[in-house]
Amino acid sequence: MSQGTQNLVEGNPSYAANFTQGDLALPPAQKYVVLTCMDARIDPTRAFNIPLGAAHVIRNAGASARDGFRSLVISQQLLGTVEVLVVKHTGCGMLTFTNAAAKDVVKKNKGDEALKEVEDLDFLPFPDLEDAVKEDVEWLKGKKLEEGVTISGWVYEVETGKARKVV
Amino acid sequence: MSQGTQNLVEGNPSYAANFTQGDLALPPAQKYVVLTCMDARIDPTRAFNIPLGAAHVIRNAGASARDGFRSLVISQQLLGTVEVLVVKHTGCGMLTFTNAAAKDVVKKNKGDEALKEVEDLDFLPFPDLEDAVKEDVEWLKGKKLEEGVTISGWVYEVETGKARKVV
Repeated sequence: MSQGTQNLVEGNPSYAANFTQGDLALPPAQKYVVLTCMDARIDPTRAFNIPLGAAHVIRNAGASARDGFRSLVISQQLLGTVEVLVVKHTGCGMLTFTNAAAKDVVKKNKGDEALKEVEDLDFLPFPDLEDAVKEDVEWLKGKKLEEGVTISGWVYEVETGKARKVV
Repeated sequence: MSQGTQNLVEGNPSYAANFTQGDLALPPAQKYVVLTCMDARIDPTRAFNIPLGAAHVIRNAGASARDGFRSLVISQQLLGTVEVLVVKHTGCGMLTFTNAAAKDVVKKNKGDEALKEVEDLDFLPFPDLEDAVKEDVEWLKGKKLEEGVTISGWVYEVETGKARKVV
């Protein structure tokens, strides 16, 4: 059995046995959404103190607002959230490569046919962490859709577990 | 102070004070990635038993493989994950609307200028839960990039906390 499947199969029964919140509503009770990175070192629920049922959590490579835009629109327009926290983090993989380098890796690992599938893809890497937080917040604020929504930008430190506000 | 910010500011200091895992490596230690929904009722870490540092967690509206593709490619090609768990869930918002209906809501809430920003967007709703899990797994398996990657599909029940394998 693969590792992820094994973890789930071993751990889910006791989670379910102790589960008491089966009547939570679909729309987030505290009307906010956290956009953060898929990074394995982040546990948003605990690190950002999000009660179950309170907030949407969107995660992608780099906590990209552009990449998360579809989900953000659904969160706000269809499910009523009015606050967005964009949380990027120290040591992010997106600080470490360029689009060209990423495509070279795909070509080397998987060949030309695989490369074709990512040729038009923007991996959305960024060279500076705090600038990237500010840029994503500005980009979101520039969208007509975000009128009336509170948007803040944060950095989470994977070395210390601390989160600090950037903008 | 907005609710999400307040939760973070109140809860993060004690998380950081008790944090002892500041030396985890960037690549996921157990080489897998979980793709699940942004839904507020899901706590992937606990429900799917994911140790900190073990796995990437991608979350978007509906646990969409297409929407998560950029992050999946980065997870696998640049950071070495070799197993994907696609976990959709009961009571998902994506079962409740169509693209046309979503765009009508945007227009009604925010007007014509906001509508322009989502006109070309596919919100990727789906009419049947288990079919959507199977389709996403098939779609991923059809990608050249996924050769050598183990892909499984699951349903998480927000009513019971149980996860079950679909494919």
